[in-house]
Amino acid sequence: MVKNAAGRLVPEVVNNQKQVPYKGINKYRPKGVKHRPAVRSCMDYPFDGNKCVESIKAALVKAGIKDGMTISTHHHLRNGDIVTNMLFDAVKELGIKNIRWFPSASFSCHQHLIQYLEDGTIHHIEGSMNGPLGKYTSQGKMKGIGILRSHGGRYQAVQDGEVHIDIAVIAAPTADPFGNANGVTGPAACGLIGFALADSEYADRVIVVTDNMVPFPCVPWQIQGNNVDFVVKVDSLGDSSKIVSGTTEVTKSPDRLLIAEYVARFIEESGIMKDGFSFQAGSGGTNLAFVLFLKERMKAKGIKARFVRGGSTKYLVELLEEGLTDYILDGQTFDLEGVRSMRENPSHVNTSPFTSYNFHGKGNFASMIDAAVLGATEVDVNFNANVVSHSDGYLLHGIGGWQNCLYSKCTILAIPSFRDRIPVIIDSVTTLCGPGELVDVIITERGIAINPRRKDLLDALKDSNLPIRDIKDIKREVDEMCGGKPQKPKIDPKKVVAVVKWVDGTVLDSIYKVKE
Amino acid sequence: MVKNAAGRLVPEVVNNQKQVPYKGINKYRPKGVKHRPAVRSCMDYPFDGNKCVESIKAALVKAGIKDGMTISTHHHLRNGDIVTNMLFDAVKELGIKNIRWFPSASFSCHQHLIQYLEDGTIHHIEGSMNGPLGKYTSQGKMKGIGILRSHGGRYQAVQDGEVHIDIAVIAAPTADPFGNANGVTGPAACGLIGFALADSEYADRVIVVTDNMVPFPCVPWQIQGNNVDFVVKVDSLGDSSKIVSGTTEVTKSPDRLLIAEYVARFIEESGIMKDGFSFQAGSGGTNLAFVLFLKERMKAKGIKARFVRGGSTKYLVELLEEGLTDYILDGQTFDLEGVRSMRENPSHVNTSPFTSYNFHGKGNFASMIDAAVLGATEVDVNFNANVVSHSDGYLLHGIGGWQNCLYSKCTILAIPSFRDRIPVIIDSVTTLCGPGELVDVIITERGIAINPRRKDLLDALKDSNLPIRDIKDIKREVDEMCGGKPQKPKIDPKKVVAVVKWVDGTVLDSIYKVKE
Repeated sequence: MVKNAAGRLVPEVVNNQKQVPYKGINKYRPKGVKHRPAVRSCMDYPFDGNKCVESIKAALVKAGIKDGMTISTHHHLRNGDIVTNMLFDAVKELGIKNIRWFPSASFSCHQHLIQYLEDGTIHHIEGSMNGPLGKYTSQGKMKGIGILRSHGGRYQAVQDGEVHIDIAVIAAPTADPFGNANGVTGPAACGLIGFALADSEYADRVIVVTDNMVPFPCVPWQIQGNNVDFVVKVDSLGDSSKIVSGTTEVTKSPDRLLIAEYVARFIEESGIMKDGFSFQAGSGGTNLAFVLFLKERMKAKGIKARFVRGGSTKYLVELLEEGLTDYILDGQTFDLEGVRSMRENPSHVNTSPFTSYNFHGKGNFASMIDAAVLGATEVDVNFNANVVSHSDGYLLHGIGGWQNCLYSKCTILAIPSFRDRIPVIIDSVTTLCGPGELVDVIITERGIAINPRRKDLLDALKDSNLPIRDIKDIKREVDEMCGGKPQKPKIDPKKVVAVVKWVDGTVLDSIYKVKE
Repeated sequence: MVKNAAGRLVPEVVNNQKQVPYKGINKYRPKGVKHRPAVRSCMDYPFDGNKCVESIKAALVKAGIKDGMTISTHHHLRNGDIVTNMLFDAVKELGIKNIRWFPSASFSCHQHLIQYLEDGTIHHIEGSMNGPLGKYTSQGKMKGIGILRSHGGRYQAVQDGEVHIDIAVIAAPTADPFGNANGVTGPAACGLIGFALADSEYADRVIVVTDNMVPFPCVPWQIQGNNVDFVVKVDSLGDSSKIVSGTTEVTKSPDRLLIAEYVARFIEESGIMKDGFSFQAGSGGTNLAFVLFLKERMKAKGIKARFVRGGSTKYLVELLEEGLTDYILDGQTFDLEGVRSMRENPSHVNTSPFTSYNFHGKGNFASMIDAAVLGATEVDVNFNANVVSHSDGYLLHGIGGWQNCLYSKCTILAIPSFRDRIPVIIDSVTTLCGPGELVDVIITERGIAINPRRKDLLDALKDSNLPIRDIKDIKREVDEMCGGKPQKPKIDPKKVVAVVKWVDGTVLDSIYKVKE
């Protein structure tokens, strides 16, 4: 273990791979060249373009599956995904062991895979772990060490050759026999499938799995068949009611509504809300409410955004369709209205972790956004933030695009000051996911704390009647109300179960086994 | 020089680079990995996304231009392009020498660059040479050896690392300061700019030049700003009347009209014209007329194509807008109607040499097409064809997508049997561009020759009253009419001025200095 530039202890080697400890914001300059996929030839692919294979199992065999390989999946089907479970059932049937599973994220539906972690089919997971797999990891049961990356960090890791994918399995709501694929149509329509882009570009072998096969050409081709080896038709990709929620509800909690209103007022009063501005808001009730409040303020002042970034919801779609923004630049659709809009509106544009978030490109979209409104599980008095674990030490969430979005011109964490009687503002975050230098504003129902580094924002708001407060004041009040600081998690400091990477591939923090 | 599998003498080394002689159709399997661009970091690019630089010259300096580098351009602005000329004026002003110019094609407007070939600013050209630069090369005046590649072969050469581009200069009819760019809007709108895709992906440094700067985001982003280093605003990209012709006229020649009608009848009578079929037709009066004839036949029988491939023209757009095809998959737009349609119709889809033609991918679109209707400068009795030189030996045309299209399920060369009293069907082509194994049918005004290898087509047409004839019969008739075979070109067999590559990067034939 070595202490990195954030003062966190991190392992120098993870799963036998040497690591670079975090060096600080914009301090680590990568060397070397991008990953080098093998040159293929059309002579080894059917000239009629028909790459169909009868089953996932058959495709895995043709792809040359072997013990110890890395298999990737994406999470656009969210908690409705059954493809990943079918995939590992097939891996198990083939008697293959020690797979590194490299999902863009995992959900509760993947609880099915715990048996394969137990029996050695899967060696370890590198990818966001939401829910049961996170808990399993926290309990120290996984054979290898989990590696958590942001969406942009995942693209970066594949592009830079940190993670070599042997076989990518891409669940595609619509595809043609050549392998062109998209997420906008079909019974499992999820909007877009950009999280699988890196996989399609860099994996040795790429398998597209669909339940909606159309004749060539499948348009739009969000995944290009020219990168695909095999196509498999299955009966269903999953439970469409869980793939997109269908309804995304605005919060009804008075506290959360207050936070949302503060965020909207902050964006207006700070001068960020002006013609041609841009913002990004995640899903979740508070964020949805914020969009509604901001919309009213935009309409009142006759202001139009140049672009808004999704995860799209019906509220962002309304902005677009009512002419309050020129574009939605969307990374994933969170509801059915988002899917419909992406299909119908040319100004609802699908993006990928490459365009949006990859830190090892020639710029990305994240740093151009005027304001990003995000959540957090914990923040500390130095504005450091946590998004993957709770104060009890359990790993229960993925990073998503959160780290990448911190590069926005004004990053706002919109969070309740306590949850279940546990304060959210603490002395030091359980897990460091976002260095405080990049967190500009913390907005709670009890007040708004502006990072002292942002003198410009402090100046802009100096005459505001918003409750601008010192973060330590808010903390003190909350601690008193909750009966003190949260208890320290009971962890085993000798047993690292996962690490958190920064957007540049360096290791930012460690996650430890929780003693139960 | 070594004799390749087509019996042609080719150099083993071209411009100090070792070559692989042509091995036969689908005989050369590439080894190795794709080209490896350097990993970049956002920390070295402006976080606000503004990559604007004041001039092409300043951008070249920032890009680190040096003697002997390779600079690439694309040809979407066709004969209206002034960017390439401005570019080399700047290179000259900087006193840089021995540039390898790697355009996707050059036109008469680039005659301006002959002075730079003369004074050593440009060492040699690798790319299609139409008109004056081809003639200059044929005269043996260029310092290096020209390398002619198909559109797909150009992508392949860049992808495989055969050609490393130091600096790519991409003329973009619309762009934003981040470098996102497209060809669908702006005063120099040319439809799409897919020929610059490989350049944007693989070049060390990428400069986007535009005369129509829009605020971020430029949508659609046919070129992704995440691959771009610098953006330059200029007053004009060129003469828009020469960029797209505006009017594309159907031939009025009775002979050409007869050829076009034969092609349409052949496609119907051979059974190729059926619901869900596909075809590709180039520009040029005969091809345009063929589309009109085929359209009437499709309407008469109530038949709809699944897709047609452009170079798009108003005639293909009519097919789409009248519901006679589901899609246009377009590689470049040949007229203003094509540009308009690409902007307005989601089913008019922009493609690239990667999707369409790259032979070193996991399949491409070219081999899935039911019928490709192409031209040729010469064919021989073994169905070999030439598309770059004339019978006098002069190099005057580029290959374009022609070689790639030969992979269609039925390749038809629609050609007059003689031009300017010179027979087009000869004993052996002056330059071999397309091996006879891939040419299925030759259609002239004097008869239709089916390649004896295609027994299926001979069978399908055996009861037709189309003039199906032996190619040697047609040749004999034409030779008699023209007063004998064409004269052999007067060439210097010791002086190779250019080579023709096959789609897999091997060397198919040599082009020699013409003795004047």
